[in-house]
Amino acid sequence: MRSRFADTVLDTAGEQLPRFGGATFTLRFRLMRLTWVICWFVLAAWTPSPCNHWRVWLLRCFGARVHSTAVIRGSARIWWPANLAMGQHTSMGPGVLCYNVADVTLGDFSIVSQRAHLCTGTHDVDDKDFPLVSLPITIQANAWIAAEAFVGPGVLVGEGAVLGARAVAARALAPWTIYVGNPAKPIRRRRGGEFA
Amino acid sequence: MRSRFADTVLDTAGEQLPRFGGATFTLRFRLMRLTWVICWFVLAAWTPSPCNHWRVWLLRCFGARVHSTAVIRGSARIWWPANLAMGQHTSMGPGVLCYNVADVTLGDFSIVSQRAHLCTGTHDVDDKDFPLVSLPITIQANAWIAAEAFVGPGVLVGEGAVLGARAVAARALAPWTIYVGNPAKPIRRRRGGEFA
Amino acid sequence: MRSRFADTVLDTAGEQLPRFGGATFTLRFRLMRLTWVICWFVLAAWTPSPCNHWRVWLLRCFGARVHSTAVIRGSARIWWPANLAMGQHTSMGPGVLCYNVADVTLGDFSIVSQRAHLCTGTHDVDDKDFPLVSLPITIQANAWIAAEAFVGPGVLVGEGAVLGARAVAARALAPWTIYVGNPAKPIRRRRGGEFA
Repeated sequence: MRSRFADTVLDTAGEQLPRFGGATFTLRFRLMRLTWVICWFVLAAWTPSPCNHWRVWLLRCFGARVHSTAVIRGSARIWWPANLAMGQHTSMGPGVLCYNVADVTLGDFSIVSQRAHLCTGTHDVDDKDFPLVSLPITIQANAWIAAEAFVGPGVLVGEGAVLGARAVAARALAPWTIYVGNPAKPIRRRRGGEFA
Repeated sequence: MRSRFADTVLDTAGEQLPRFGGATFTLRFRLMRLTWVICWFVLAAWTPSPCNHWRVWLLRCFGARVHSTAVIRGSARIWWPANLAMGQHTSMGPGVLCYNVADVTLGDFSIVSQRAHLCTGTHDVDDKDFPLVSLPITIQANAWIAAEAFVGPGVLVGEGAVLGARAVAARALAPWTIYVGNPAKPIRRRRGGEFA
Repeated sequence: MRSRFADTVLDTAGEQLPRFGGATFTLRFRLMRLTWVICWFVLAAWTPSPCNHWRVWLLRCFGARVHSTAVIRGSARIWWPANLAMGQHTSMGPGVLCYNVADVTLGDFSIVSQRAHLCTGTHDVDDKDFPLVSLPITIQANAWIAAEAFVGPGVLVGEGAVLGARAVAARALAPWTIYVGNPAKPIRRRRGGEFA
């Protein structure tokens, strides 16, 4: 399944398939994204932690739906702001890689810690043309993606779930449950469902 | 359990809890750390390998206890030098992330290879305020933390232990034993205990 | 087993063993490599995606055997070009770390995705002098090393094999098989052997 977003901007007319190193996206979209990357680099990437309102404003200019209480660090990298939604008191830490070819949604009070990777894109390994496949990532309220963890395409992180440091999630995570390891496995329930 | 260091500099007076995106540390400490980060960036981060004595001197100025034979690369990142102790002939490779909110201690001849992560901080997932928890990391003599491995809060790496590339240690590692995987599991004894 | 290349440039005359933080390679080789690192940094590291022919030309000047249809991104890091061979329509994505102390060979149509790590070097943990051990990595035709995966020294990635995101391969991967996890384990066959 491909996302509607990807269907719109994918370079389906081009003869250059990914298998042959061709561009996946249209020239128009690539120029738009280049503009975004340059804007973030020049205006936001180097800004210190307290300039958060400025970064939120910049993200909104490019179409992100970000609550005013959300926190995002300058060293975080958003692939495409229009595919990002962050609820109240959410947080995206230093060096987070948000590769949101499809939508990435952070529920209220959810936290993505330093250098975590939210990866919505993959390739269909069973298709000879190796096409891009992109699936949305949804992180529900009060969940915590710990340092350097990896969330794969299409993963639903349930309310209050914890993905431990360096853990790798390829499937849905159950609510109020702690997962560790690569691949991620549940180790125990989290006490705290009562304060959701 | 929180470390004594964290207790001293934690912003316990503030109303802004981590759960609400508030600062964890006092303003005074954050300014001190900003000074350190700027100093390392300007004076050391770009220096080539042979300028090691200069980097050791700079770390000592900020309170690190580093032996003169210790080796630390410019691209390594020390969160707070006063929480770092490195014994003789220890080594911290390129891109190492030493997130030492609590003490990090490297015993003689221990090696931390490129892009490894020594992470002393986590959060109490069972507390609704989600407070910072920091626990010291101790790496004993002759141990080797290989490339891109991860050592979590409170971990004791036993003498001569080896944590393989990309392995993730959340518990104590037995002496002269080789661990791989995420989570790290022992695979065999290391021959060499006799030369400790 | 050490590679022939490493035997040639290893600083075997020096008294400074790796265990004592000494340099592993000869001064002459280190200066040659410094030239390469500076050249890539000044001339290629910042170049956008479409300047691919320029980067391929630069790699060839330093001895890499790279097909003209190969794609390599500016943010990729090649340790030593003379140890690199890339076949037709191969690809090395953004942020790939190719630590090729020994040869790294990419077969036709093979893909190495963003921030993957091809690591040919390790240390002999059973030798008290802790010498560098380097073993070649061979990635056969149509294989895919996905984002942030890790391929260790001496690994042969079979034709059409897939190493999933963040997976860690320390042993040979069977052809047309999909591996995930750390350590990497096979999960199923890949459909597509027929289009090889």
